[in-house]
Amino acid sequence: MNSEYPLLDSLILPQGVADLSYEEKYLLAEELRSLIIKVTSENGGHLASNLGVIELVIALLSLINSEDDKVIFDVGHQSYAWKILTDRYRQFYTLRQKDGLSGFPKIEESPYDAFGTGHSSTSISAAVGYSRALRTLGKKGKAIALIGDGALSGGMAFEAMNDAVQSNEPILVILNDNQMSIDECVGGMTRYLEQLRVRPSYLSFKTRWEERLNKLKIIGPPLLRILAKLKYKTRSWHKERGIPFEQIGFRYYGPIDGHDIEGLERHINAAQSVRGPAILHVITKKGMGYAMAETEPTRYHGVSPFPMQYGLSDKDPQDQKTFSDVFGNAMLTLADRDKKVVAITAAMAQGTGLCSFKNRYPDRFYDVGIAEQHALTLAAGLAAGGAKPVVALYSTFLQRGMDQLIHDICLQKLPVIIAVDRAGLVSSDGPTHQGLFDLSMTLNLPNLAIMAPATAIDLERSLLYAHEYKGPVMIRYPRDLASTVDLISLDEAMPEPKSLDDLQKIRHVRSGSDLTVLAVGPMILQVLLAIDSYIGTDYSIDLYSALTIKPLDTDIVLKSTKKTGKLLVGEYGCLNNGFGPNVISELCELQPGIIIKAIGVKDVLRGQATRAELFQAEGLDPEGLAQSIMKIIGR
Amino acid sequence: MNSEYPLLDSLILPQGVADLSYEEKYLLAEELRSLIIKVTSENGGHLASNLGVIELVIALLSLINSEDDKVIFDVGHQSYAWKILTDRYRQFYTLRQKDGLSGFPKIEESPYDAFGTGHSSTSISAAVGYSRALRTLGKKGKAIALIGDGALSGGMAFEAMNDAVQSNEPILVILNDNQMSIDECVGGMTRYLEQLRVRPSYLSFKTRWEERLNKLKIIGPPLLRILAKLKYKTRSWHKERGIPFEQIGFRYYGPIDGHDIEGLERHINAAQSVRGPAILHVITKKGMGYAMAETEPTRYHGVSPFPMQYGLSDKDPQDQKTFSDVFGNAMLTLADRDKKVVAITAAMAQGTGLCSFKNRYPDRFYDVGIAEQHALTLAAGLAAGGAKPVVALYSTFLQRGMDQLIHDICLQKLPVIIAVDRAGLVSSDGPTHQGLFDLSMTLNLPNLAIMAPATAIDLERSLLYAHEYKGPVMIRYPRDLASTVDLISLDEAMPEPKSLDDLQKIRHVRSGSDLTVLAVGPMILQVLLAIDSYIGTDYSIDLYSALTIKPLDTDIVLKSTKKTGKLLVGEYGCLNNGFGPNVISELCELQPGIIIKAIGVKDVLRGQATRAELFQAEGLDPEGLAQSIMKIIGR
Repeated sequence: MNSEYPLLDSLILPQGVADLSYEEKYLLAEELRSLIIKVTSENGGHLASNLGVIELVIALLSLINSEDDKVIFDVGHQSYAWKILTDRYRQFYTLRQKDGLSGFPKIEESPYDAFGTGHSSTSISAAVGYSRALRTLGKKGKAIALIGDGALSGGMAFEAMNDAVQSNEPILVILNDNQMSIDECVGGMTRYLEQLRVRPSYLSFKTRWEERLNKLKIIGPPLLRILAKLKYKTRSWHKERGIPFEQIGFRYYGPIDGHDIEGLERHINAAQSVRGPAILHVITKKGMGYAMAETEPTRYHGVSPFPMQYGLSDKDPQDQKTFSDVFGNAMLTLADRDKKVVAITAAMAQGTGLCSFKNRYPDRFYDVGIAEQHALTLAAGLAAGGAKPVVALYSTFLQRGMDQLIHDICLQKLPVIIAVDRAGLVSSDGPTHQGLFDLSMTLNLPNLAIMAPATAIDLERSLLYAHEYKGPVMIRYPRDLASTVDLISLDEAMPEPKSLDDLQKIRHVRSGSDLTVLAVGPMILQVLLAIDSYIGTDYSIDLYSALTIKPLDTDIVLKSTKKTGKLLVGEYGCLNNGFGPNVISELCELQPGIIIKAIGVKDVLRGQATRAELFQAEGLDPEGLAQSIMKIIGR
Repeated sequence: MNSEYPLLDSLILPQGVADLSYEEKYLLAEELRSLIIKVTSENGGHLASNLGVIELVIALLSLINSEDDKVIFDVGHQSYAWKILTDRYRQFYTLRQKDGLSGFPKIEESPYDAFGTGHSSTSISAAVGYSRALRTLGKKGKAIALIGDGALSGGMAFEAMNDAVQSNEPILVILNDNQMSIDECVGGMTRYLEQLRVRPSYLSFKTRWEERLNKLKIIGPPLLRILAKLKYKTRSWHKERGIPFEQIGFRYYGPIDGHDIEGLERHINAAQSVRGPAILHVITKKGMGYAMAETEPTRYHGVSPFPMQYGLSDKDPQDQKTFSDVFGNAMLTLADRDKKVVAITAAMAQGTGLCSFKNRYPDRFYDVGIAEQHALTLAAGLAAGGAKPVVALYSTFLQRGMDQLIHDICLQKLPVIIAVDRAGLVSSDGPTHQGLFDLSMTLNLPNLAIMAPATAIDLERSLLYAHEYKGPVMIRYPRDLASTVDLISLDEAMPEPKSLDDLQKIRHVRSGSDLTVLAVGPMILQVLLAIDSYIGTDYSIDLYSALTIKPLDTDIVLKSTKKTGKLLVGEYGCLNNGFGPNVISELCELQPGIIIKAIGVKDVLRGQATRAELFQAEGLDPEGLAQSIMKIIGR
């Protein structure tokens, strides 16, 4: 029995929540806050957004029938309180760990998770679907989407609202307005929501927050000092009848205080009983109750484990840079040299390493909101107009803009650089955040060049030369520290690359005669480790590194395989339909009889784990690679 | 000298347009109308939308500096007048023909085509990009997006408007409101636009249309009779200050009459001079001036060549059904049997064959607008809620919803059927409308089964059994007539399939010993033709047809290749990274030394042409296939 959480320990969940007094509900909120802070400080996770919706989740669970009603969490960065209060309190300490609870809602994890999320702006579509299914099957229940103001910048949220009106679908959209995306919110919708926020009712609950928070056990500096710094706009509220939500056919309620459980219950009740689509605008504070997360919600959006008392340290313990850092620095160099260079991100300035670019060149930096489709076509327009745009996205979110990449960038051969971060296996977030599909989706796109830097210097060179290319270039790299080795130093015969042509040649890294190995991007470093640690001088490997993987000039590899007769191709994106099968298909025709094998990620549904665990499970760690190497040599 | 078009013949284009009197401009509009009707009646093309914007294009060219200002046509179904009046009058008769003018704007076709389009809702993003490029490079000029009300239902248009406001980007969005998408417009935005349309200024120009149209040379029944049928809402106009466009930060003008050149010029001038983003709401009539196209704009949206005097005939001259027809009928059968079946389309009820479903089951039919992202996640929500959704999309538009397919449907293994029409080579529309990438993007998606029916009965069976599958199934088929042959009749040993398991087995079609051929979907029929017409009894081919291509059970093919030693794999999607390389990769490992070759579409950028021309150019017609077959046998 954990005496820190007496209510959580004693309640029958989720039903018990409804029977609590309001005073008890606030105590429950406190327990949830400390539990969430404790577990994310140990396991890492999405802190600030989860702290912001605790009262909202308590209010929801007090009102809804959690069997019939379906609550869908957009993105899912705010589902921890829900997980704890429905049926996962006892497992919550396993959050984001291998075989533990997912950091996102997941259908197979619990019957209370109505819809799995991870990517943004899907919840209203799913809620409309649920609601229509209930009607089709003649079932009772209500579909409720809980969506942040940031996610509202994604176009599909608008598509879903536009459609919901058609069937007068009785969904409830709860707009969790914390004035933040992962970074700050941007754009016209944000501006509009700001206008709504200056209603008198909103200004009054600012005071209430201050009172209530004084009573909470606050970790970190006193909250009031921070609250005092917040500037609330004082423009007067116009009773516009024609607010956009109403005009497209939603009933609009709000804005209301998202930390006032009583008020929340009253308004949710009212909004729930509307016959058609309704939106309830709730103002919350990201990081509520954990002062450091409140002041720096972007930094505390998704965190690695951190010491709870001190927060995140200013300096990374190790001085080594991630690929994102290297990219950010290289972008500065490029922008210094060429005034035409502009950078685009979809709400990921920090994640992609573009913060210093944003600070140095605010006029050449565009954060478009969570809007990958627009980000890519915006880049196409910029390139068509003569600028030199670089779009930085995560691999998993590139999936959001495939048509824009094909239709607007590649078909038109526009010189856009697409920097694809988090490509390949990614730790802790699970299948929704893996970067496994970018290659299979792009390897056959017309006019597109693809580069996979293995090291920091590779990434710098890739960006530099991609900038000269007369067409689109995708540069992909993992979520990892970037090695400071320069691969060309490993083979004396390898010259310093002086042009894109040079970068397009497959690089020879080591000589050997038993097997040819071709590694994509940073996989080369794992192969080197495999050889040095497990194979040694037992066999000699002719080793090649592909920096440019499209177009792929296989001549040099073919010369080697003509001697060795055997080829192993290694990548850590998706094995099936990825880079490997294409090379195999080409070489089988050029050298019939060749013994050839590709390795890569076989199970794209693998749950969250550390990166090392994932590599090991896929046999892509040095030991696993050594086994693959020896197996193919033995054939 | 063509005396039918005296103004077009004599004008220096595009500059000459500006110097005309208004009377001459209306005469020019008449010439453009008859030229466009003539050429589309001969070549096919997008008629109704092009007729609607003639006056708008004349007004634009009268005002803008066509060197500095950039006009971007959303979708591009309305770019014909622009093509004619800028620099392609003499080539216009080659519209949509092989090596002729594209039916869409195309950067490489003319310096006046600022941005290539084809897919919907990209124009505002591109305009924001152009505008930012102009500013980055210190150039003058204005970016203008011409977008239809239908395209406004696509979420990325909203994303772009949301972003434009951030930099107070001085773009002009001309909203071409013809109250139509390809099908009728749907959703909340449509409802909102309807409210705008009842402003007094709009009601007055209805009368003006009637007057002006009386003067036009009208082909077909008198226009007035049709106009009289139009019902205009007479709700009073509220002077809402807070209209959505204004509230997110756009200056809004309108609605104005899109067939009144003088009024258009006045308002475009005003809207153009706004310092920030502005939207000009223009009401046009789709099909304006060609009565039959006005009354049936959906039918006349995109047309095949038709007899100009009679319009499209009611009955197809040949009774044979397309795959879309077969799909539509099979959907009725399925829906009759199972009340849980619902259908979803993204503005393509007619194109995908779902009109009779829509009529019979209006409550189970959802047209979500041009919103593929939402369409797929809506389906996921429906499936999660227990319904049995079928989403029908074109292959090229599936690209719009890749993340939703992966993240919402496949990762969650939800039983959604995705019917992918227009897969493979597609005639006349050019690269933007080819269905070449669906397989490379889906072949490695987790939990997804993929079927490629070869014939009408194949498609019926696929749909029937996909309905029983406990996970997502994609069924892909071409834009073509569906053969009425039943392939199982070709081999006596082949039993009638009774389950999904049966459909998953690769089918044996003919026996032989010189070569194994595995054909995907309808390619099997082309291979049969190749053998019968060009190979005869010279060689004997062991022939297999893959209806289910994922999961692929290669055992039966492997048994054959162990005997023949040679395999040819045929598809007519993209060759590179498509179905072929995956099969090659698998078989090379199972049978080292096998001679193996894949065929498919090599040049994904091939311009528009008839389907027969495209097949021939790619060597996928019977003659080309016969050559490939003989070449691999000869190796």
